[in-house]
Amino acid sequence: MKVTLSAVDTYETSFTPLVVIELAQDVKEETKEWLKSRIVAKKKDGGAQLLFRPLLNKQEKETLGNKENLYLVGASGLRLLLGAEAVGLVRECTDGTMRAFTYDTRRSFRGFHDDNDDFLTMAECQFIVKHELENLRAREERMIPGYPHAKLYPGKSILRRLLTSGIVLQVFPLHDHEALRKLEDAWYTRFSLHYQPIDSIRSYFGETIALYFGFLEYFTFALIPMAIIGLPYYLFVWEDYDKYVVFASFNLTWSTVILEVWKRSCADMTYRWGTLVMKRQFEEPRPGFHGVLGVNPVTGREEPLYPSYKRQLRIYLVSLPFVCLCLYFSLYIMMIYFDLEDWALSVHQESGTEWTGVLLYVPSVIYAIVIEIMNRLYRCAAEFLTAWENHRLESAYQNHLVLKVLVFNFLNCFASLFYIAFVLKDMKLLGQSLATLLITSQVINQILESLLPYWLQKKHSMKVKRKVQALKVDMDASLYKQVLLEKEMGTYLGTFDDYLELFLQFGYVSLFSCVYPLAAAFAVLNNFTEVSSDALKMCRVFKRPFSEPSASIGVWQLAFETMSVISVVTNCALIGMSPQVNAVFPESKTELVLIVVAVEHALLALKFILAFAIPDKPRHIQVKLARLEFESLEALKQQHMKLAAESLKEEPRGGKTETGA
Amino acid sequence: MKVTLSAVDTYETSFTPLVVIELAQDVKEETKEWLKSRIVAKKKDGGAQLLFRPLLNKQEKETLGNKENLYLVGASGLRLLLGAEAVGLVRECTDGTMRAFTYDTRRSFRGFHDDNDDFLTMAECQFIVKHELENLRAREERMIPGYPHAKLYPGKSILRRLLTSGIVLQVFPLHDHEALRKLEDAWYTRFSLHYQPIDSIRSYFGETIALYFGFLEYFTFALIPMAIIGLPYYLFVWEDYDKYVVFASFNLTWSTVILEVWKRSCADMTYRWGTLVMKRQFEEPRPGFHGVLGVNPVTGREEPLYPSYKRQLRIYLVSLPFVCLCLYFSLYIMMIYFDLEDWALSVHQESGTEWTGVLLYVPSVIYAIVIEIMNRLYRCAAEFLTAWENHRLESAYQNHLVLKVLVFNFLNCFASLFYIAFVLKDMKLLGQSLATLLITSQVINQILESLLPYWLQKKHSMKVKRKVQALKVDMDASLYKQVLLEKEMGTYLGTFDDYLELFLQFGYVSLFSCVYPLAAAFAVLNNFTEVSSDALKMCRVFKRPFSEPSASIGVWQLAFETMSVISVVTNCALIGMSPQVNAVFPESKTELVLIVVAVEHALLALKFILAFAIPDKPRHIQVKLARLEFESLEALKQQHMKLAAESLKEEPRGGKTETGA
Repeated sequence: MKVTLSAVDTYETSFTPLVVIELAQDVKEETKEWLKSRIVAKKKDGGAQLLFRPLLNKQEKETLGNKENLYLVGASGLRLLLGAEAVGLVRECTDGTMRAFTYDTRRSFRGFHDDNDDFLTMAECQFIVKHELENLRAREERMIPGYPHAKLYPGKSILRRLLTSGIVLQVFPLHDHEALRKLEDAWYTRFSLHYQPIDSIRSYFGETIALYFGFLEYFTFALIPMAIIGLPYYLFVWEDYDKYVVFASFNLTWSTVILEVWKRSCADMTYRWGTLVMKRQFEEPRPGFHGVLGVNPVTGREEPLYPSYKRQLRIYLVSLPFVCLCLYFSLYIMMIYFDLEDWALSVHQESGTEWTGVLLYVPSVIYAIVIEIMNRLYRCAAEFLTAWENHRLESAYQNHLVLKVLVFNFLNCFASLFYIAFVLKDMKLLGQSLATLLITSQVINQILESLLPYWLQKKHSMKVKRKVQALKVDMDASLYKQVLLEKEMGTYLGTFDDYLELFLQFGYVSLFSCVYPLAAAFAVLNNFTEVSSDALKMCRVFKRPFSEPSASIGVWQLAFETMSVISVVTNCALIGMSPQVNAVFPESKTELVLIVVAVEHALLALKFILAFAIPDKPRHIQVKLARLEFESLEALKQQHMKLAAESLKEEPRGGKTETGA
Repeated sequence: MKVTLSAVDTYETSFTPLVVIELAQDVKEETKEWLKSRIVAKKKDGGAQLLFRPLLNKQEKETLGNKENLYLVGASGLRLLLGAEAVGLVRECTDGTMRAFTYDTRRSFRGFHDDNDDFLTMAECQFIVKHELENLRAREERMIPGYPHAKLYPGKSILRRLLTSGIVLQVFPLHDHEALRKLEDAWYTRFSLHYQPIDSIRSYFGETIALYFGFLEYFTFALIPMAIIGLPYYLFVWEDYDKYVVFASFNLTWSTVILEVWKRSCADMTYRWGTLVMKRQFEEPRPGFHGVLGVNPVTGREEPLYPSYKRQLRIYLVSLPFVCLCLYFSLYIMMIYFDLEDWALSVHQESGTEWTGVLLYVPSVIYAIVIEIMNRLYRCAAEFLTAWENHRLESAYQNHLVLKVLVFNFLNCFASLFYIAFVLKDMKLLGQSLATLLITSQVINQILESLLPYWLQKKHSMKVKRKVQALKVDMDASLYKQVLLEKEMGTYLGTFDDYLELFLQFGYVSLFSCVYPLAAAFAVLNNFTEVSSDALKMCRVFKRPFSEPSASIGVWQLAFETMSVISVVTNCALIGMSPQVNAVFPESKTELVLIVVAVEHALLALKFILAFAIPDKPRHIQVKLARLEFESLEALKQQHMKLAAESLKEEPRGGKTETGA
């Protein structure tokens, strides 16, 4: 039997599906009807005024025996342009300035033609649709029709309630296979040295992800000088005092400079993309937030509120002790590792065969694996705890999560190295451990993060394809197939893990750089393949993520800067402890320590002065931003002048007389 | 003969003089006429639409034989309200929120009545008049009429050109003697313990000066705990290791906390005053700025431009070497001081009479005086150099000046103490020098800054009074007298010197606090009188300054924070060097140094964590600011919604059909 997936739905003739909404299989008809009516309703009636249709019509559904409730959401071109104005999209004008898009001034924007649908990228359209869906708010509804327990209150985002009640299973944007193929070709399939097509990544995946890849690339290139300078130190075993100092000083200054210069390149990119000047939207409560209905002092609306002191209590009485316990546990595991190491060494010394030689490396590898496992377990615990702390805003949630995870991962990954360096004072072991940890974690990450999911995904996709073919329907069911395939793909959970990996790598490279100068080289090698595996992951393994505008890498900039401050301290200490340096001050160790401390303080001061002296934005961006500000102030002034001129015309003359003297 | 200073001038019947403009005595009639016409011209004709009249009319001038060109500027009530809107004044509404004042919504502001002239304080009115005068811009004029060399270009501020050409000698606001007397009564004339009337100071002198007095008071109270805890250390000569550490740790944590808490109190005050939410105005080039006419990339106007690289060259090739030379010179003087000190000591030891005992203190006192002189000389040089660097904006000029002056004053005041502490390692001498420097500089400052000028001012005022009485005019000439008196008063050059004094005091108190615990007590004593002498200076010695809105103490917050970071380092080093602590580690000095360094790093880390963890704004201010932002975003959204609803009505239906599958 033939199934035709007719495009002519009841609502609209021209329809490009942008976003898929999957409802639970047992959703009541009443609820479906209500949701549909709210999504298609006119803006003035409080609707989203979007296009909405089921993936399969009733007949097709019955034929295929498909019980899934899949809906496609789209929007007319005009609706998208108005949405672009509502989200505050910033675009380049024909005169080269960046301005917030408004429908009225649409013709002054570069690339806009009335008959042109390409003005907004598909990622932008999907972002706009998502924004409109999330801003679809309850009016008089006190609950979701058909679900008396899913309470609503005026102003509550309907979609968020549907998601938390499990009525909507997921909302995700569709891939555009043609564009994706083009992007892949330019990005990672050809094995040649070239920059990543950051602008294309941005138009396909949005700014947040493009910034991650931009940072990954920038960071890799920034590491190359450190890798190159480190090579001869490793090859020729340079261990003189002055060469050490030169290497360490270069590394420390360099790491400050690259972080500052990144801020500038980042501003450059985000200005071009418009996100640097984009106005921040008011942040809605995160989906998981719950509380007692009360009047929010900020919005003035009746909303769930959660008292701040309760949250503080949860943080300080539960989360903090838990984190400390985890840190203690991590240190405990570390001590076991050192026992194992001792044991392996004693076995090797007793019966020095080749096998026991290999045994020497086993504890390190096991420890590296255990660290990875602990990091992942802790991550889940941290997510649970942070969610339980019940933060109102997504940004607060993220900050608390990042802080928890960073502290633990830092200790978990680096504690053993600190122990070896400053307690055991065994530089050779330090170099060895560093190498083992770095390489093991990189290999594990590449496998767990991209290749394994890719393989799983491939297997699954074969299964789905077979299933679709088994239907023996002779039809052009590409959209149906695409939706079925993509809805089963994993969800990309944001750039957190990717940045974390880079952050730990930066730690391995910079904290003990003068002991193991090869670390930078390994990091560079890893990152060259990391680009490809991350790109593969984005394009093939996960559902397409919603584009998210962002103007910088946010809290990670601070994290990297903190790491580079800590690395000044560790490197100075390492140099001070090296036997070569100690040989220069054979009599007075105190003098040596004082000199090292002085140098450390000078370096730290230099870092802060450099960070202060290098402007965060390049000059041409500063000028452009100043121009924007000037224009808006001028416009305001013009308005005042006009008003003043009008008001002063009516000013009453005369009045009371005053004696001036 | 009788002279009547008639208040009924040709232009306006109701007239409260707010601001005085003094023109040079030989100004051409043509120029006067032009200036007058521009000031009174209607807003729509590019004028300032202010009221303007000579202090004396022609007849009176001839009678008095007065050649001075003094003019009074005022404004009608309506004009002032419109001006308040133009400068972006923020006021409290009847519903308790802070909003930018607009004339249309005037009735929603607390304290506004149509028949009420008290809504704006006199300081605000004067600020508005100043803003309007400064924003009086050239239109077609290519030069100032009558002065072909005083070039103008469209958009150039007329008043600034008049000032730089010496045609206008000065522009200053008038005192309001009744309000001033009330303020003085509440402020410093009654000798009783009470808080300063910061809000009244603010309404009379404006936010910048009120913030200085607020900071002075806050800082004094914040020093009291340090002074109290320091007293027993001095009295009982507590010199145990642990007591030292307790004292130093308290001081260091305390100084971090007070600076953070100040930010919060400051936000609290400036929110109440409206300056925290006041929109920044576009910054005009500073009066002294010169350059070649070109198109400014920011404003798009034809303006004088000065290439940035030339300024950089001046900074790095002239200013920087000059500052270094001055620093070197200061160190040289310091070495001479130590030679003198040695000489005095040797004289005293040879012939130990009482006289030579006094002689021991002479070098310190001389050095303290020399330091003050050098600071003042350097200050002039720094001002000259910074002006010569030709910064376009007043803020850039101020930043470069502050940086130059701070670095030099820091070295000049503290170098000898550092030398005694860390090279001579003579703690007793350090305590002595610190006391001498602190007390001498405080005494000198109080005299030079307030009492001497007050005395001079008093003498001068007598002279003027006698002169006015000598005219033997039997008239109510109080306004005439007031203007004559005030125009001869010195000009208050801003809060720079006052903050600098506090900054150096903070250095004396915190850098070596564990050696001389009495410093805080002296600072507290000084500051209690400093409040009165500074208040006297503001009210009686100087011309009334124009009110200046500001939301914080700006760069000084950073300066104080930097000082408190440096003081962590010095105090840790001092404790590490003390014989008591050294006695605890008799064998291993290295261990001691390492422990001290570890403690120092821990304290620094604690400082940064504290600074990070204490929110800069109190929670209720955060909520109010969030509410303001929310409202403006909501308003924007409403606007978009309305537009969207309108546009979507006209949306064309139908169009091309697309096959979805």
